[in-house]
Amino acid sequence: MEKVDHIGIAVRSIEGVLPFYKEVMQLEMIKMEDVETEGVRVAFLQAHNTKIELLEPLNQESPVAKFIEKRGEGIHHLAFLVQNIEAEIMRLKGQGAQLLQEQPKRGAGGAKVVFLHPKQANGVLYEICER
Amino acid sequence: MEKVDHIGIAVRSIEGVLPFYKEVMQLEMIKMEDVETEGVRVAFLQAHNTKIELLEPLNQESPVAKFIEKRGEGIHHLAFLVQNIEAEIMRLKGQGAQLLQEQPKRGAGGAKVVFLHPKQANGVLYEICER
Repeated sequence: MEKVDHIGIAVRSIEGVLPFYKEVMQLEMIKMEDVETEGVRVAFLQAHNTKIELLEPLNQESPVAKFIEKRGEGIHHLAFLVQNIEAEIMRLKGQGAQLLQEQPKRGAGGAKVVFLHPKQANGVLYEICER
Repeated sequence: MEKVDHIGIAVRSIEGVLPFYKEVMQLEMIKMEDVETEGVRVAFLQAHNTKIELLEPLNQESPVAKFIEKRGEGIHHLAFLVQNIEAEIMRLKGQGAQLLQEQPKRGAGGAKVVFLHPKQANGVLYEICER
């Protein structure tokens, strides 16, 4: 794995939290897009050596909506960048790691992503992504 | 703010999660220490462009013990590094930000730290630290 690509944060409203991130945290938004397959609107903020990804649910079926309902708003996942996600999936499986998907799916910005089952990571949801 | 210094993760047992971080995530532990004033054992892992800080409660009065009791193990806070924490506190107060401490306190490795009230950050606990 190369680096922490981003930290994902579940929020009810991106528009509602942007003033805090801009004025208090002094972070700039790089881009915003809807990822319809995941039912989320996504805003990326440049946080110096990494990025913050704000995730706003677009409907009640979105996994992010369910997360907020269950745990409230807050940090949702931690994403590591890799060069070759297929090779990384092979390595992870070789280590006995449990993945939430058999095949990488498309995330924000067309990235290929898979998630590790949070059970084995003591409650932390880790994403592996290739850009 | 300079960069994301570390991501703090609350765990019941550092020893219990280290094999996952070493073998699956391939991260090396840099150091481990007890911060008695906070009632926590802390292990830092080098995560390429930032660090992961594993936090294990040393007693039931530890804020980390209370966090785990209430929300379970998982990501606890996100820490930004600054050059001059006193100047940063002044700036934050000028922005109307609410801090959990009036004065910086001593964290792991002798760092000076303050926390922002998570209410204004939609559930995320932000730490500001000077090393």
